[in-house]
Amino acid sequence: MKNLIVQKYGGTSVGSIEKIKNVANRIVEQKRKGKHIVVIVSAMGKTTDQLVDLAHQISAEPSGREYDVLLSTGEQVSIALLAMAIEKIGEKVISLTGPQVGLQTSSVHKRARITGIDDKRIIGELKQNKIVIVAGFQGVDENNDITTLGRGGSDTSAVAIAAGLDADCCEIYTDVDGVFTADPRVVPEARKLDEISYDEVLEMASLGAGVLHPRSVELAEKFNIPLIVRSSFNENSGTKITTDDNMEEAIVKGIALDDAIGKISIMEVPDQPGIAYRLFSMLANNNIHVDMIVQNTNRAAINDISFTVDEDELQEALEVAQKFAFEVEAQKVEFDKGVAKLSIIGNGIVANPEISSKFFETLYKLGVNIHTISTSETRISVLVDKHISKKAMIALHDSFKLKNN
Amino acid sequence: MKNLIVQKYGGTSVGSIEKIKNVANRIVEQKRKGKHIVVIVSAMGKTTDQLVDLAHQISAEPSGREYDVLLSTGEQVSIALLAMAIEKIGEKVISLTGPQVGLQTSSVHKRARITGIDDKRIIGELKQNKIVIVAGFQGVDENNDITTLGRGGSDTSAVAIAAGLDADCCEIYTDVDGVFTADPRVVPEARKLDEISYDEVLEMASLGAGVLHPRSVELAEKFNIPLIVRSSFNENSGTKITTDDNMEEAIVKGIALDDAIGKISIMEVPDQPGIAYRLFSMLANNNIHVDMIVQNTNRAAINDISFTVDEDELQEALEVAQKFAFEVEAQKVEFDKGVAKLSIIGNGIVANPEISSKFFETLYKLGVNIHTISTSETRISVLVDKHISKKAMIALHDSFKLKNN
Repeated sequence: MKNLIVQKYGGTSVGSIEKIKNVANRIVEQKRKGKHIVVIVSAMGKTTDQLVDLAHQISAEPSGREYDVLLSTGEQVSIALLAMAIEKIGEKVISLTGPQVGLQTSSVHKRARITGIDDKRIIGELKQNKIVIVAGFQGVDENNDITTLGRGGSDTSAVAIAAGLDADCCEIYTDVDGVFTADPRVVPEARKLDEISYDEVLEMASLGAGVLHPRSVELAEKFNIPLIVRSSFNENSGTKITTDDNMEEAIVKGIALDDAIGKISIMEVPDQPGIAYRLFSMLANNNIHVDMIVQNTNRAAINDISFTVDEDELQEALEVAQKFAFEVEAQKVEFDKGVAKLSIIGNGIVANPEISSKFFETLYKLGVNIHTISTSETRISVLVDKHISKKAMIALHDSFKLKNN
Repeated sequence: MKNLIVQKYGGTSVGSIEKIKNVANRIVEQKRKGKHIVVIVSAMGKTTDQLVDLAHQISAEPSGREYDVLLSTGEQVSIALLAMAIEKIGEKVISLTGPQVGLQTSSVHKRARITGIDDKRIIGELKQNKIVIVAGFQGVDENNDITTLGRGGSDTSAVAIAAGLDADCCEIYTDVDGVFTADPRVVPEARKLDEISYDEVLEMASLGAGVLHPRSVELAEKFNIPLIVRSSFNENSGTKITTDDNMEEAIVKGIALDDAIGKISIMEVPDQPGIAYRLFSMLANNNIHVDMIVQNTNRAAINDISFTVDEDELQEALEVAQKFAFEVEAQKVEFDKGVAKLSIIGNGIVANPEISSKFFETLYKLGVNIHTISTSETRISVLVDKHISKKAMIALHDSFKLKNN
């Protein structure tokens, strides 16, 4: 659809009635410039946490289906209130839940994947000159059951809808000014980037730099939807995320630190063909996302396999690892929450020896012990001890001259 | 469906996590006796009030559509939590929202009427031996928009579903032991009735005796579904509501008092054919329920028209009345919140002169001034001054020997 902007407002942007009214004003301002507008909203502030708390007062492990029925009410409250605030200003508006907007997903509750969008209703409402407010984070599966999309769900809803409607861009409103060279809470001198490529921001997101969830960035790249990350509390221009900017020179764009991870090691695994495949498919079948993997064949026919997972999947991953260890007669399963993943990001940096040598030199001078290294086209990551990780991040930010001019 | 019980739990019955667990235990107990069970649930305690308050912080008059999107989240939270509590005990269970259960309604938001039920999903789930938990008070219109049923909505949902599934009975769980001869808060000697007819309880409900909303009773009578009103906090047997018990003798079953009403008078309305019709159709078009009507043609070709409405529709009714008065060139619109409607209920009592004479004698002896009288097959109602209405109620309860033995 021509002249269409998709906007997404996160939980902090709609965290109170006053903030909702503020967001309504922003939206109406854009609308009155002659744009079609679709807005995706998260649940207000701490609502989701409160709902999770209610569930846990009843059951430590409620079924995913009922969990999703419960959690999806959070966004439904936000869309109704935001629509009321826009009505009050005097613009035509309608709120739509995930099921109403036809956001089809898989049936994996708590972390469903979007499979398609039936855009008839949303286009019909836009053609009636209405602002359309959509509940983020939620969809409906083929049984007409409510699903939620898991972490980064609202961003992903927004990008999927922008892609489905072929929007001009997707603006992600949040409580920070954009994408920074490093987390400003750790590195006070961090600088906001005006532009960054999908690949770079994807690495930063994957590596714990917050702001955007990798799912939403992948989807935006796939459908070539420009993403704009900006603050809902000021008029600053934010960071624009588009296709690769084709710079000849590889430069480091940012530093990311993820310390909400855990490492699991399975010791003395008998060496059989396909044994690693078997472990990682067991983990995948339990929807556990595995990150850095190391396999050491340190003695004849005996492996140690280590991998990292998100901290909040550690418990579940440990259970799978224990089961695997028992089945294959491995000797021991250990876990370590004292590690962090530190990364530098920039297109082409792996191919540039100056950058990698500066990276390892900086860490060496600080006396940082490196557990594991992994690289991709656009990043170099190392697993280090958590206690020294922030200090290392600041040193790297300095070495690569990323601070404000 | 054979061997099927529909149960409805109101907001106080699910007002806390502890109460939800208690209700879950009750339901599972019934299930384990070999019954199919469908449960309709209201929003937890004060949830609906809190949601209304949020809406009003944004707008004094939010649109009905968005209001319904907002309010329906209250029941959605309850069904998810109750389903989790039943899962936890170890029974198969599924929660369904109004749209999921196929509860079709008109598009009049905030007070939609049920137009039909698509029972495929609910029967499918029951056949899989699941307890089915349904969100009360809500449905979906033909545009796939969420609607709410207004006051008495959850009771009405329960009866409609019981009728659609041809249940053995519909149990309405509440915070009182059943239907009483009079409101025990006003008449401490009031007695719980073991049985009462649809017609009688319908009159009591219409007349402000609380407990059940007339809509749900009408529907139960229409489809001949036995209703049982009982407490969710004890094991008492409650009050059973069925078809007329065919007693030869007309007796007074109960006394009802409705003091949440207002009287509107339109003075000096020029006498034209169809003028009353015009007023009452204007009110009906605004979904205002008009109760007692008096028209006095006190001088040549000049009428005074008075009617009563529920207190919370008084404001809206006054606006309509003002508009009407202006259009027909009436002289004045007045309102009076100092009135109450006092009624005695019992099958055939109107035809029994002893009963009506005792009724008016009792009021006369107390010096009660009667504004208006209206009667039906099963009741005699009078409009009296609010300040003396409770005293009159107690006197009538005594005259008709309704107290506990």
